[in-house]
Amino acid sequence: MGSISEQTVSNKQVTLKEYANEGCPKESNLLVSTSLIKLKVPEGTDGVLIKNLYLSCDPYIRVLLQEEREPGHPFAPFELGSVINGLGVGKVVGSGHPQLKIGDFVWGMNGWEEYTLIPTPTQSLVKIHHSDLPLSYHAGILGMTGMTAYVGLYEIGAPKKGDYVFVSAASGATGHLVGQLSKLAGCYMVGSAGSKEKVDLLKSKFGFDEAFNYNEEKDLDAAFKRYFPEGIDIYFDNVAGKMLDAVLLNMKYQGRVVMCGVTSHYTSSKIDCGIFNSNQVILKSIRMQGYVVSDYYHLLPKYLEMVIPNIKQGKIVYAEDIADGLESAPAALVGLYKGRNVGKQVIKIANE
Amino acid sequence: MGSISEQTVSNKQVTLKEYANEGCPKESNLLVSTSLIKLKVPEGTDGVLIKNLYLSCDPYIRVLLQEEREPGHPFAPFELGSVINGLGVGKVVGSGHPQLKIGDFVWGMNGWEEYTLIPTPTQSLVKIHHSDLPLSYHAGILGMTGMTAYVGLYEIGAPKKGDYVFVSAASGATGHLVGQLSKLAGCYMVGSAGSKEKVDLLKSKFGFDEAFNYNEEKDLDAAFKRYFPEGIDIYFDNVAGKMLDAVLLNMKYQGRVVMCGVTSHYTSSKIDCGIFNSNQVILKSIRMQGYVVSDYYHLLPKYLEMVIPNIKQGKIVYAEDIADGLESAPAALVGLYKGRNVGKQVIKIANE
Repeated sequence: MGSISEQTVSNKQVTLKEYANEGCPKESNLLVSTSLIKLKVPEGTDGVLIKNLYLSCDPYIRVLLQEEREPGHPFAPFELGSVINGLGVGKVVGSGHPQLKIGDFVWGMNGWEEYTLIPTPTQSLVKIHHSDLPLSYHAGILGMTGMTAYVGLYEIGAPKKGDYVFVSAASGATGHLVGQLSKLAGCYMVGSAGSKEKVDLLKSKFGFDEAFNYNEEKDLDAAFKRYFPEGIDIYFDNVAGKMLDAVLLNMKYQGRVVMCGVTSHYTSSKIDCGIFNSNQVILKSIRMQGYVVSDYYHLLPKYLEMVIPNIKQGKIVYAEDIADGLESAPAALVGLYKGRNVGKQVIKIANE
Repeated sequence: MGSISEQTVSNKQVTLKEYANEGCPKESNLLVSTSLIKLKVPEGTDGVLIKNLYLSCDPYIRVLLQEEREPGHPFAPFELGSVINGLGVGKVVGSGHPQLKIGDFVWGMNGWEEYTLIPTPTQSLVKIHHSDLPLSYHAGILGMTGMTAYVGLYEIGAPKKGDYVFVSAASGATGHLVGQLSKLAGCYMVGSAGSKEKVDLLKSKFGFDEAFNYNEEKDLDAAFKRYFPEGIDIYFDNVAGKMLDAVLLNMKYQGRVVMCGVTSHYTSSKIDCGIFNSNQVILKSIRMQGYVVSDYYHLLPKYLEMVIPNIKQGKIVYAEDIADGLESAPAALVGLYKGRNVGKQVIKIANE
């Protein structure tokens, strides 16, 4: 009889059935099916076998579901029939790696499936150190999502006390954290979202000074003049397109635009609107800067040291939107682009 | 008989006759006329009276000739009938200021006229220290234009040896200096210009590695793929619009876009094309940054120390395009937007 690490078991998976080249991805672009996996790390390798517990459902996945791409795009699309790759939290159930042992919890890049074999874990996995907080938090606020908000706001945006900060997609995974981190930094904080319910939550639960429903603003420029009569110091941009264009007209001198996301680009093959106000960048000495959060992972310990006590003391409220089971993954992903989630969309795969 | 400082003399001036709201400014937007000026600084003030010698003819003046402007524009237009303000070089012929005496040469903000009374010279004038180089150079390479190239390239662009650098409007006042400063920094340098003659000059006289005529490139993206098969580290942008949009597709990871000018915006009331590739800024961690050169004037001594020996040793070739007399000013200004000048357009007003 072999040990558990030599068993062959069924492995439910979410694979790419059809590329989503036009418009919003549909559930039918993905397929939930079952294959077999040998619960064994190949002899002589330092691979690890992960039992996946929580998946992080992220807007950027849209880009990888699209086969067509402009020249110079740095990321290749998923292959048809392949398992969707993404971030998640899992438990080590087999290991040839000296620093990861069976029973350890990790977060990082894995697959949308029950078990994933990771051949070179040092590139992609972070070992989780116990913190009393739910394990699922490492698929969000204590992982890539939290770092995205932290790095974008603090490293790129460089907030000063009293700065006027605006974030779009403010009730989303990154947005609701950006708002709270800005308040901790002593900034005046306004967010935009796509429904009255979300706007209410921003003000009542997440501590935003003001919030508005962009669907109710026919003239975005007028909205910014109303909410920021003195102008905007930092714009944390999750949507790009016409929102960014209107913000540029309302930036203050030496303002910073944190280029984080392009939601307006995710639901159609073309961005909703070009940027016509780029001359504002010159006139006002504006800095617009993109970043890839993994370039800043060396700051993770510093971030966790700051954020964990703030969560425990209730100074940062983290909203999770947890879907249950791999079967729910396609709908959860599509929901991101329909604005269905509040806070971080996570998919629970298995009990710890 | 009064001394020279109490004489009343005729003062030829260029004034705004009509706003240039649509398209390229025309000579008829400006009027050359003559008024009278008392060659005397008002008693008890620290004003100075300048005899203007050279005027700097700069593309940004377009913005001030336009009455209509988008909300949030930081600069007010010229008033109808007022003297055109701009940068220039002059000689002090009257002074109530302790640091400026009669006979001193200065550069800074003055008027398009023979004599200008400047009430608060500390805000706007820089005293010229003798350098053996022509006085007119302080209306260009040794003044604002040179600092624009230097600050944009070195402070914002941060070139490293071996970087691939592209500059648009490369044969213009700023562009031809950016190219030569990039070569001094050990970069590979490509420029674009609007005629075969200019392209030839870039390669034969200004030391560019490559140059192309943008009018002959139907597909700008393909042109960049040809000239920069490895991508672009620094784009020094003098034109914005569709050139910038195509460059974004060809930037390297962590590339920098120095946002300096918007020529495409100067000759029409709307920019020629929006930026649709802003997602590249995120995917490639690009920094796009505007600047106002006067924020960096504390670096002027450092810049002069570097650039003057390079000019004297022939390592930097400075091209001046000198028009003679105030009467030539309207045509010289319009010529900027027609691409008539090579290098720095200067207007000579009087002999030293």
